[in-house]
Amino acid sequence: MDIVLLGSGNVATHLGLALVEGGHRILQVYSPTKAHAESLADRLQTDAVDSLADVTAADCYIIAVKDDAIGTVAAQLPSSLRGIVVHTAGSVALDVLITHPKRGVLYPVQTFSKAKAVDFSVVPLALEASDEATYAQLARLANSLSVRVFSCDSRQRLALHVAAVFACNFTNHLYAIGAAILREHALDFDLIRPLILETAEKVMEHQPEDAQTGPAVRHDTGTIQKHLAALSDRPDLAALYRLISDHISHPRVMSSK
Amino acid sequence: MDIVLLGSGNVATHLGLALVEGGHRILQVYSPTKAHAESLADRLQTDAVDSLADVTAADCYIIAVKDDAIGTVAAQLPSSLRGIVVHTAGSVALDVLITHPKRGVLYPVQTFSKAKAVDFSVVPLALEASDEATYAQLARLANSLSVRVFSCDSRQRLALHVAAVFACNFTNHLYAIGAAILREHALDFDLIRPLILETAEKVMEHQPEDAQTGPAVRHDTGTIQKHLAALSDRPDLAALYRLISDHISHPRVMSSK
Repeated sequence: MDIVLLGSGNVATHLGLALVEGGHRILQVYSPTKAHAESLADRLQTDAVDSLADVTAADCYIIAVKDDAIGTVAAQLPSSLRGIVVHTAGSVALDVLITHPKRGVLYPVQTFSKAKAVDFSVVPLALEASDEATYAQLARLANSLSVRVFSCDSRQRLALHVAAVFACNFTNHLYAIGAAILREHALDFDLIRPLILETAEKVMEHQPEDAQTGPAVRHDTGTIQKHLAALSDRPDLAALYRLISDHISHPRVMSSK
Repeated sequence: MDIVLLGSGNVATHLGLALVEGGHRILQVYSPTKAHAESLADRLQTDAVDSLADVTAADCYIIAVKDDAIGTVAAQLPSSLRGIVVHTAGSVALDVLITHPKRGVLYPVQTFSKAKAVDFSVVPLALEASDEATYAQLARLANSLSVRVFSCDSRQRLALHVAAVFACNFTNHLYAIGAAILREHALDFDLIRPLILETAEKVMEHQPEDAQTGPAVRHDTGTIQKHLAALSDRPDLAALYRLISDHISHPRVMSSK
């Protein structure tokens, strides 16, 4: 497919690299900041534009910008363009692209960072589209990038993003809290790296409910009290410890709706 | 070394297997429940005892039982035995073994489960002992099991355990919350497995503070509000979402002591 990529951040970069590898042609990279557009365009060996008026004819326009900028970019993108218009966000409804008749969403369920390459071929891609023909086009594109393509509506996709925030963003913050506690006691973060990896690897095969260990699930109040006492000079961490431990100890909250 | 293993749970099992592999002799496995002692003794091809009065002479007694049972087992273990007496708990002070003159701690910083083998040779082992000679003996034992042996006092070890609870037990609970949210929306946990693994792998090389992504660190209040609205029928999850997001958004709390 001939594609125009709108955006220059982590998602645009990793998606752009995967598209090129998948045999697609990136006709242009757009960013309102010329230098950003040029930097990614260089990597993808294509042209850079910093005005939406300069966007060329293509089969597909992929908007991979910050959530609150998607609407603006979509509205300024000429509706006379014939290609499908797609965004990549988890928490933005399909309707944000309402000015475009053939619209879709391709949400990659993965965390992308500058420093680390990602194997895009196994990244789950959540698809939604305005109509069946657009969905078919989008699915063809997605299947050329990943073996894990699935359909989900805007409400499901929002839930998926919330789940991802708990399992990725919040999890990373717990790692950061662990690192901070160690640092305060002259211990290296490296000491819990094997534990972090093992905890993640365990749920690759098992359900996390079955893998839960630690004082809270054992209702080991003696150890919990020792830990809270150890956190007495960090009321912020004690509050988090208490709330998460309580939630682990009361599984009824997890299973009810 | 000739070792008596007191306990039959996950830590006792994984440690016992590592000890045998390290060339040590397990003389006995003790558990107050005969069947448990026999089950592990069978795996380690040794004898089972269910009374502490029957414990034989050895170089080292390793107490790997529940935290609140360590004191009882240690007190009932004849103080006339000449070997060193060691426990394996993160949050229990060395002094719980006070009736034994040569006492130590060997705390493996890892999560052990029945279903999954662990490469013990890279598990960080935190050591503490009552005196230099006992420490030297314990270090010899630990070095035969793992390449990552280090010294830490009871206060540091407690902090290490608290950090491990955040980075392992609490993290697994966030995975479980993710799984529950997905289930409620007819989506499979498998969809976020690559994300979970990538999040853990990212901090194997980087510090978690540098790897933080998501709406909270971007101060993306629009997305945060959407997520809280999506959790409106789950006030327990909304409370967790709010507290952790607030903590991410205010890094000053993390860096101050």
